[in-house]
Amino acid sequence: MKAVVYNGPRDVSVSTVPDPRIEKPTDVIIRLTTTNICGSDLHMYEGRTSFEKGKIFGHENLGEVVEVGSGVETIHKGDRVCVPFNVACGFCENCERGLTGFCLTTNPGTAGAAYGFAEMGPWDGGQAELLRVPFADFNCLKLPEDASEKEDDYVMLSDIFPTGWHATELSGLQPGESIAIYGAGPVGLMAAHSAIIKGASEVFVVDSHDDRLDLARKMGARPINLRADDPVKQILDATNGRGTDRGCECVGYQCCDRHGKERNNATMNALVQSTKATGGIGVVGVFVPQDPNAASDLEKEGKMAFDFGSFWFKGQRIGTGQCNVKTYNRRLMNLIEHGRAKPSQIISQRLPLAEAPDAYKHFDNRDKGWTKVVLKPAA
Amino acid sequence: MKAVVYNGPRDVSVSTVPDPRIEKPTDVIIRLTTTNICGSDLHMYEGRTSFEKGKIFGHENLGEVVEVGSGVETIHKGDRVCVPFNVACGFCENCERGLTGFCLTTNPGTAGAAYGFAEMGPWDGGQAELLRVPFADFNCLKLPEDASEKEDDYVMLSDIFPTGWHATELSGLQPGESIAIYGAGPVGLMAAHSAIIKGASEVFVVDSHDDRLDLARKMGARPINLRADDPVKQILDATNGRGTDRGCECVGYQCCDRHGKERNNATMNALVQSTKATGGIGVVGVFVPQDPNAASDLEKEGKMAFDFGSFWFKGQRIGTGQCNVKTYNRRLMNLIEHGRAKPSQIISQRLPLAEAPDAYKHFDNRDKGWTKVVLKPAA
Amino acid sequence: MKAVVYNGPRDVSVSTVPDPRIEKPTDVIIRLTTTNICGSDLHMYEGRTSFEKGKIFGHENLGEVVEVGSGVETIHKGDRVCVPFNVACGFCENCERGLTGFCLTTNPGTAGAAYGFAEMGPWDGGQAELLRVPFADFNCLKLPEDASEKEDDYVMLSDIFPTGWHATELSGLQPGESIAIYGAGPVGLMAAHSAIIKGASEVFVVDSHDDRLDLARKMGARPINLRADDPVKQILDATNGRGTDRGCECVGYQCCDRHGKERNNATMNALVQSTKATGGIGVVGVFVPQDPNAASDLEKEGKMAFDFGSFWFKGQRIGTGQCNVKTYNRRLMNLIEHGRAKPSQIISQRLPLAEAPDAYKHFDNRDKGWTKVVLKPAA
Amino acid sequence: MKAVVYNGPRDVSVSTVPDPRIEKPTDVIIRLTTTNICGSDLHMYEGRTSFEKGKIFGHENLGEVVEVGSGVETIHKGDRVCVPFNVACGFCENCERGLTGFCLTTNPGTAGAAYGFAEMGPWDGGQAELLRVPFADFNCLKLPEDASEKEDDYVMLSDIFPTGWHATELSGLQPGESIAIYGAGPVGLMAAHSAIIKGASEVFVVDSHDDRLDLARKMGARPINLRADDPVKQILDATNGRGTDRGCECVGYQCCDRHGKERNNATMNALVQSTKATGGIGVVGVFVPQDPNAASDLEKEGKMAFDFGSFWFKGQRIGTGQCNVKTYNRRLMNLIEHGRAKPSQIISQRLPLAEAPDAYKHFDNRDKGWTKVVLKPAA
Repeated sequence: MKAVVYNGPRDVSVSTVPDPRIEKPTDVIIRLTTTNICGSDLHMYEGRTSFEKGKIFGHENLGEVVEVGSGVETIHKGDRVCVPFNVACGFCENCERGLTGFCLTTNPGTAGAAYGFAEMGPWDGGQAELLRVPFADFNCLKLPEDASEKEDDYVMLSDIFPTGWHATELSGLQPGESIAIYGAGPVGLMAAHSAIIKGASEVFVVDSHDDRLDLARKMGARPINLRADDPVKQILDATNGRGTDRGCECVGYQCCDRHGKERNNATMNALVQSTKATGGIGVVGVFVPQDPNAASDLEKEGKMAFDFGSFWFKGQRIGTGQCNVKTYNRRLMNLIEHGRAKPSQIISQRLPLAEAPDAYKHFDNRDKGWTKVVLKPAA
Repeated sequence: MKAVVYNGPRDVSVSTVPDPRIEKPTDVIIRLTTTNICGSDLHMYEGRTSFEKGKIFGHENLGEVVEVGSGVETIHKGDRVCVPFNVACGFCENCERGLTGFCLTTNPGTAGAAYGFAEMGPWDGGQAELLRVPFADFNCLKLPEDASEKEDDYVMLSDIFPTGWHATELSGLQPGESIAIYGAGPVGLMAAHSAIIKGASEVFVVDSHDDRLDLARKMGARPINLRADDPVKQILDATNGRGTDRGCECVGYQCCDRHGKERNNATMNALVQSTKATGGIGVVGVFVPQDPNAASDLEKEGKMAFDFGSFWFKGQRIGTGQCNVKTYNRRLMNLIEHGRAKPSQIISQRLPLAEAPDAYKHFDNRDKGWTKVVLKPAA
Repeated sequence: MKAVVYNGPRDVSVSTVPDPRIEKPTDVIIRLTTTNICGSDLHMYEGRTSFEKGKIFGHENLGEVVEVGSGVETIHKGDRVCVPFNVACGFCENCERGLTGFCLTTNPGTAGAAYGFAEMGPWDGGQAELLRVPFADFNCLKLPEDASEKEDDYVMLSDIFPTGWHATELSGLQPGESIAIYGAGPVGLMAAHSAIIKGASEVFVVDSHDDRLDLARKMGARPINLRADDPVKQILDATNGRGTDRGCECVGYQCCDRHGKERNNATMNALVQSTKATGGIGVVGVFVPQDPNAASDLEKEGKMAFDFGSFWFKGQRIGTGQCNVKTYNRRLMNLIEHGRAKPSQIISQRLPLAEAPDAYKHFDNRDKGWTKVVLKPAA
Repeated sequence: MKAVVYNGPRDVSVSTVPDPRIEKPTDVIIRLTTTNICGSDLHMYEGRTSFEKGKIFGHENLGEVVEVGSGVETIHKGDRVCVPFNVACGFCENCERGLTGFCLTTNPGTAGAAYGFAEMGPWDGGQAELLRVPFADFNCLKLPEDASEKEDDYVMLSDIFPTGWHATELSGLQPGESIAIYGAGPVGLMAAHSAIIKGASEVFVVDSHDDRLDLARKMGARPINLRADDPVKQILDATNGRGTDRGCECVGYQCCDRHGKERNNATMNALVQSTKATGGIGVVGVFVPQDPNAASDLEKEGKMAFDFGSFWFKGQRIGTGQCNVKTYNRRLMNLIEHGRAKPSQIISQRLPLAEAPDAYKHFDNRDKGWTKVVLKPAA
């Protein structure tokens, strides 16, 4: 089959590779109809990780079941399913409590696995024609009758919609509260979409890109351009000095200060300041235990000069980590089905698989207008 | 009246000062019968804060009501009451949600007030014969009939028992889970007592003082002496490499590494390592937004070289801040009344008020056997 | 002053009564600018309660502070405030946990007080020119700058908007879940409004009045007319036999079956059937411990022939009781201020105080088009 | 193999039946070493259910894995496992949220399955030498190294210890609160044990059998003998008229009033009275949607003359239903392993499988001293 394969830093190709096959009775094989490029793919694309040459990219996958193992109970050939990016067993100590992003079975020796991802287990990705899905009863979300019509919405259930939602959950957001979201990339925009659906009274979105802030405004959020002024000052001014009830970090360790300089504490220290005392902060932007290419010694060790004194004095809380997609995907599917959520609104390009290499280039350059790329392997 | 007054760094005296009086209709005056010296008094005693000369110490107070304002509804002369260290109004945006440690009324311009404390509002302390308690209906906890008999237990409801309990709440501890508590001072020991009462399956307590670790052992905890070996290693070994479900920081910014060197990140970075992925960490040890006398530039700014990368990768959570005493004090009072909690077991000295200066000296020296000092102004 | 006074069953008048005055240092007096007639006023109007002749009606009150007691801290003359229908002290065992609908101070001997209400303490109502508000710092919600412009929205914070919201909270509703609300009176409509704001995926509203169901439809809900067919059947059909995740009872003990016959178990037994196994049911419709005029002996004793067997077998939950308004009113105020909630949309009449007797008559007759009456005492 | 087989009302035998075998790749077979008789087995034993002749009893099972299907991932031959009484798939809409007592896969058409139980699916019971366990990775709890030594404690993880714990969870019990448990059978005693482990301040246990109340007292609870006086009065007297914070129903529809007369509302209406306003009630005693042999018409339909008026007026909550064993069993296992729980203390008889018919007879007669019978099929 054809698949998007990693050949080395900034070098991907659409190559022919062996078809995946049923390896265990609990597996299924799906034929992909939509699979997205994610911002986190770029870490691997840029060669900043241990991702191996020859491996297939892609952890945001939706398709049709074409083959079913003998131990699969409720998933059948022909089912349209969306697959969480976390590969989870469903029965380990973490999965049984809903912590599917930290499965202890699928990536032995650590906690948490994903398709086509560095350090996240042996699983190939879905930017391809076919994908093997293990523990299929647990990992496949069966889609409703309008699956085809709203495919570009449902595919977002694999990662960014639940991840944005998770950011707001980790922050402790309650209806009627205000929230500031740092980062207007796809995940930050999904966090804004989530906060509005949940009844936030006011949603601020901080970024430096006008096109992304325009999208945020269209969604009902209040854009804060950090190039215009210190975002903390802007948020405090807009809230009579009070700060927001909640905040979300949707950028990660490569975040930049107002002058475009990468500083891994830029967003977190701003969040401590722009969030009210007793407020909560949810962090879904990726931070790494080591970053050999970072500018400072501290950052190389994955450490951050974090404003812990103010954080403690204000009695704030932080929740972090990868989203446990299954905690949310069924209920977010309901919101899409009933017309109350529309995550596809951020899609900027729909392309055949063959154009993936070009799309990676544009997306990695942060070229204007390349917000979210969706690939169509079956097209 | 007589009161313990601050004269300057490491200099306190028992001096005669004017009696407090009813200033607002919602005030009461209490005659103190027990008032404790707290580890956090030492920050002020040592002159590391903005605490003003002439101010009275003491935020752990229990006594009898002797005068009642005209607007007080349910507190009467003769009532035996224990007073939370937080001075709270009961009706501001934070108090109405139970966040009484962050009252917006009693320390205007910031969030949170306390008796006899630097930066925590104009309130005098209770290491004295009399104390003015504002918003008395809200701030006074009426004690049960055995108030005298168990006075040394009930006085712990003012601060350290709820604060230790809060540490375990902030960590997210559930019955049947394991927890590691860093610090076996009074608050750490109360956290251990709390965890055991709540049904933790296993409680580790980390410290370098044998006498305190012995107390922890007597309470049912498992002592970890950090002088013996890296506490992270000891905890991981004792949990088959898994780590504990939860962790508590009960030391604060003056925490030390294994070699006794003050490093503000010593406990937090150890907690990230000794806590399992998806675990929670509660922080009640005090961290400060600036610390002019600290060793490093980072610490002077109140910042910490925090292992944020590992923290995020493990999907952990942190809750912080001063305890909202009223959230817990009534139910902890019930536990004492029914014989299920005995916080007085950590008291090492019971002294008349006149011996306060000497007691401060010993306690500040961390002299062996000076775990928790209780003063008896009415004795 | 002028006030709406109860003279006996179905007999109210606008009479001259003595002005209220400051009785305790913690009181304020407010001049009412908006005060609503509530469905629960009708129980008293109809003479089915112990409400005494000469008492003033009115527990949904908004106005301007005109006099302030000496022990009031943060409420000032000229403040525009909305007052929760519950009279609460803010410091008793229940209030300190947010259970202000069950205050132990303001209605001694039972739990919970209200203005102008049978069995709910000695407090006069606010369908008048002036109202005494006790524990004013706690009970007055200060309104934002647009208080005048949105007065008809903010007045709903006194009762029906929080009460509708409470119904959804008691049901355990999470975003993305479905809910069925029995009753399209003002509270039921507010429950529907709340469910939609909170991100319910689908909201069913059951009633027999077309005009109310039309309002529900305009709000985004799906109307179920119980005259058309068994509402349980309609809901099960619309959910593939699954039932809704959650349900709300917003009618109370005078609920009727499909044929218009009063049966106090009509709504509850339907809810057990139309709610999925493991679902939750919130009950804010009033049920009474005794109802001397009821049709059956069981109902006279306040008992219900409840389908407990099915309820248990399905593992459902019920939460009940009066709304603790202060738990929600500040955050719902934020939603109004930021344009995300508009509870005034259900108002059908805005009338001067003098027209109250006529309004009671129409409202009690359930005359078409009399959904929600708002009185303007200062007009 | 040998198994305890139902032959008709009050007639069981130990008969030879075909061995169970692996039917699906996700199955395992276990050789039972301990399997209990449960109070709920008596409903079937007495012929009051649709339980079919020839079916094997037993849903409280512990044993050793002897055969493993090809799709099983983490359970191996020789593992010592305890099996929840609920048969659950682990991946349906209910199981994925932890509601394993309401699995939609294992008992199609309804919600929830169990081994050897009427109306709970086709699964044979474990009062036998061998048992087939489906979805074995999900349903088998692997026991720690002291599995043999504490086998009689660990076997209680299959049902009654988690069920008693669930009762306290459904009631909303927090540490420091008081609770009244109606019923001192095995489940009620486990609820008392749970409440004490969780830090309840005071635990009342209501029953009419002195031997069971003695056990409750030994566990640290306060016995209330309903033969001595109205239990509501006793509890109100013991709490200064306040009532308890929480209550648990651990009897079920065959509960009796003080005079020993079966009335299905006896415990529930007492709970409404003895629980404080705003309190919570957890119901794990079984109530049935129909009971053809009941005394009254109401009860035949599974209905209850429930004191809904008082329940609503007091703003109480009820949670019901079968325990989702997997929600608790791992953490309760930790408590046993670390010596903090000892559920085996209620065992009255340990018998070989062959004595099961005799044991059923004694247990059904409620013969004194027959509290909890444990069978040892491998003995």
